[in-house]
Amino acid sequence: MVVKVYGPAFASPKRVIACLIEKEIEFETVPVDLLKGEHKDPEFLKLQPFGTVPVTQDGDYVLYESRAIIRYYAEKYKSQGTDLLGKTVEERGQVENWLEVEAHNFNPPIYALTLHLMFASKMGFPPDENLIKESEEKLGKVLDIYEERLSKNKYLAGDFFSLADLSHLPFTQYLVGQMGREYMITSRKHVSAWWDDISSRPSWQKVLQLYAPPF
Amino acid sequence: MVVKVYGPAFASPKRVIACLIEKEIEFETVPVDLLKGEHKDPEFLKLQPFGTVPVTQDGDYVLYESRAIIRYYAEKYKSQGTDLLGKTVEERGQVENWLEVEAHNFNPPIYALTLHLMFASKMGFPPDENLIKESEEKLGKVLDIYEERLSKNKYLAGDFFSLADLSHLPFTQYLVGQMGREYMITSRKHVSAWWDDISSRPSWQKVLQLYAPPF
Repeated sequence: MVVKVYGPAFASPKRVIACLIEKEIEFETVPVDLLKGEHKDPEFLKLQPFGTVPVTQDGDYVLYESRAIIRYYAEKYKSQGTDLLGKTVEERGQVENWLEVEAHNFNPPIYALTLHLMFASKMGFPPDENLIKESEEKLGKVLDIYEERLSKNKYLAGDFFSLADLSHLPFTQYLVGQMGREYMITSRKHVSAWWDDISSRPSWQKVLQLYAPPF
Repeated sequence: MVVKVYGPAFASPKRVIACLIEKEIEFETVPVDLLKGEHKDPEFLKLQPFGTVPVTQDGDYVLYESRAIIRYYAEKYKSQGTDLLGKTVEERGQVENWLEVEAHNFNPPIYALTLHLMFASKMGFPPDENLIKESEEKLGKVLDIYEERLSKNKYLAGDFFSLADLSHLPFTQYLVGQMGREYMITSRKHVSAWWDDISSRPSWQKVLQLYAPPF
């Protein structure tokens, strides 16, 4: 069965695609244009009632929420492609810990920066300069903690690449690219080495080559 | 080894404690008073650099982020106590899906309500009435989707109690209690039956009896 992934132009679905490539799982993509509001179409809401991307459809098995989808495929195909969950239950615990740190500490400020630096003008609202400043400060503090962590471990969950690292790829790519905030990464030695490592993986390079961002 | 859980008076650590009781795992608690800023003490920051609760310490194995901790213990002790992850990888996928829905759709508005209805005056800032109104509307829309989901399945991930349900307990308890918003649950037939079911579990009743909220 080929896995269908909805919304490949956008950031969160790229987590899923990077994971499927790492796991050597066949997939196809279905465009959903958030800027045209296609995620609020009644047909789409039948698949994903909260009206966000990504969604995956695998026969009649449907999942949404990118970090749930990557956990599912990483576990279902544990021994195929790259192992993304660690070898032991303790290693997996650390993967879970840093996946949650990404979701609850790293993502809120970087998402706010994405919205206000990249999407605001396209979506017809003025960027909130105070929020941009505040979010950059918050993100900087999070990256200081990452710097400390990555001075002791090559990757976030330990000395192995995992879902916890992979989950950072899409929004950090915006940060160093369209957002022009590369210095937030390069000014931190260990974060910078980690970013060079994870962003040069063939899976991520393929995602960037195949699925252009929305503008 | 007895698991140490930091911060039992507060909501997120109660997710962890409910899980440990369901899994029949021995634990002890360590108070951390957020209202006195103890989560920003240098000693505490060595354990949890982001300065939040809960933290668990199991010998020298440390985790933070409540939803990472509950996944770890539910997996490590899969066959002990209540199975909270589902029987198959597909069931676990649904548990992950609805744990993420809780974290990203349900939690933001209910957390904002908690902060502004329960903590604002204690923390010395005025409640933001617009944010309260907006958060109540957002939460209502999320609960409408839950109502539809729970009309087809007894629990969020399927016909089995799981981490996805358990994760809703602490903040929903505030909603129907101190926040005086019980009508948001009771006005929705299937959500109401689900809440009665999950909140009457002996594990949750024990949490409420043992660990009083901070005020």
